[in-house]
Amino acid sequence: MSKIISQEPLMIRDAKWVRLVKTTYLDPNGVERTWESSERCTRPAGVDFDGVGIIAVLEKPGAPPELLLQKQYRPPIGKTCVEIPAGLVDAGESPEECAVRELFEETGYHGVAVPAEDAGEKSCLMFNDPGMCNTNLHFVHVKIDLTDERNQNPKQQLEENEFIEVFTVPLKDLYKECRKLEKEGYGIDARVGSLAEGFEVAKKWKFL
Amino acid sequence: MSKIISQEPLMIRDAKWVRLVKTTYLDPNGVERTWESSERCTRPAGVDFDGVGIIAVLEKPGAPPELLLQKQYRPPIGKTCVEIPAGLVDAGESPEECAVRELFEETGYHGVAVPAEDAGEKSCLMFNDPGMCNTNLHFVHVKIDLTDERNQNPKQQLEENEFIEVFTVPLKDLYKECRKLEKEGYGIDARVGSLAEGFEVAKKWKFL
Repeated sequence: MSKIISQEPLMIRDAKWVRLVKTTYLDPNGVERTWESSERCTRPAGVDFDGVGIIAVLEKPGAPPELLLQKQYRPPIGKTCVEIPAGLVDAGESPEECAVRELFEETGYHGVAVPAEDAGEKSCLMFNDPGMCNTNLHFVHVKIDLTDERNQNPKQQLEENEFIEVFTVPLKDLYKECRKLEKEGYGIDARVGSLAEGFEVAKKWKFL
Repeated sequence: MSKIISQEPLMIRDAKWVRLVKTTYLDPNGVERTWESSERCTRPAGVDFDGVGIIAVLEKPGAPPELLLQKQYRPPIGKTCVEIPAGLVDAGESPEECAVRELFEETGYHGVAVPAEDAGEKSCLMFNDPGMCNTNLHFVHVKIDLTDERNQNPKQQLEENEFIEVFTVPLKDLYKECRKLEKEGYGIDARVGSLAEGFEVAKKWKFL
C-alpha cells in the first residue's frame, strides 16, 4: 500500500519534471496582464501535446461491452486513481503510435488505433486544466481484438517504479462504479468521470 | 483579440497562484520515492476540492436539448478554450453553492443544483491531471428554468479581468462541434471533450 511520507515546497533548482511559467499577455481590450501556470518539462521540442488517453472497449463474447481501466497510485493527490490507460508521448511519435505503445506497456494488450465513430482520423486534443497548466492529451480509440493470440494472456511491460492494476467495467455500469470506487477511497480521473457523465446525460436527454 | 506577449520562468518568490510540490512517498513495495507536481494556492484551508464544473442543459421549447458552454481565453495555453461553466470554490461553500454562484456570475442564469440522473446528491470529484497536479473539481448538474422571469435576459456578472462568451450547442452535435471549433483554433477543455466522447461511445456501443 502506497502512502505519502511528506510534502514540501519544490525548489526550482531541484525540479526536473514540472516548472512554473509567467505569461504576459494582452486581454481582449488590449490591456497587458500576467498569468501564472505550470507545465510538464517532458514535452518533446516542437510537439504540441503531452500524451494520450486511450479509449479501449473490450467485446467479450456473451458479455456487455467493457471499458478498459486501471488503478494507479498518484503521489500528487495521495490516492490511487481510476484512469483510462494513458501515457506521455515520446519524441517523433504520433498520438496513435503513442497510444498503441502505451496500451501494450501498461496493459499487455496489442491494439490498433481506430477513428472515433463520427470522426476523422483522431480525436480532439483536450486541455486538462487550461486556467492552471498547459497539459493536454489526445483521446485515441484503440481496438483490441480479443481473438488475437497475442491478447490471450496480456502481460504488462512496466518500469520498476510503475504499479498499475488493469481492470474493466461494463460501460453501462461506469457511472455507478465510479461512485462506488470513490466511496472506497479511490480518486476518479476527469476523463473517466466525464465519460461516465456523458453516458448519464445521453441516457437522461435521449438525443442519440 | 487576446495574445501572448512573452512566457518566462516564474520565480517561487513571485508566485501567488501556483506552487511546486515535492512529495516523498512509499511505493507498494515499501520503497521510498519522490514525485514532483504543482498545486493551486487558492484552495481554502480544510477543503478537498478546487472548484466545480457545471453541467447545464437548456430545454428550449421546440428545440433539441443544448449544453451551456463558454469561450474563455486561457493564457497558459495561448488559446481561447471551449469549456463548461466552472469556477473556484470560496471558503465555506458546498460544491452546489459554488456551482449556483459561478453559473450566475459567468452566464447570468439563475439555476438550481440537482442530482445527476442515477446518482445521489452530487457528482464525483474528478482529478484533472493526477500525475502532474492535485487540481480537481466537482461536476455539478444545474437546472435552469427558462420560464423563470430572471432567466429571460441573463446578464453576466464578470470581474474586470474576465472575458467570457456564453454559447450553447445541441447535445447531439457536441462531438462534431468540438472538432469544428478545434479546427478554427479553439482549445477544447477535457471535460467538454470527454462528455462528447461519452456520447459517441454510447452511440457506438448502444448500451444505454
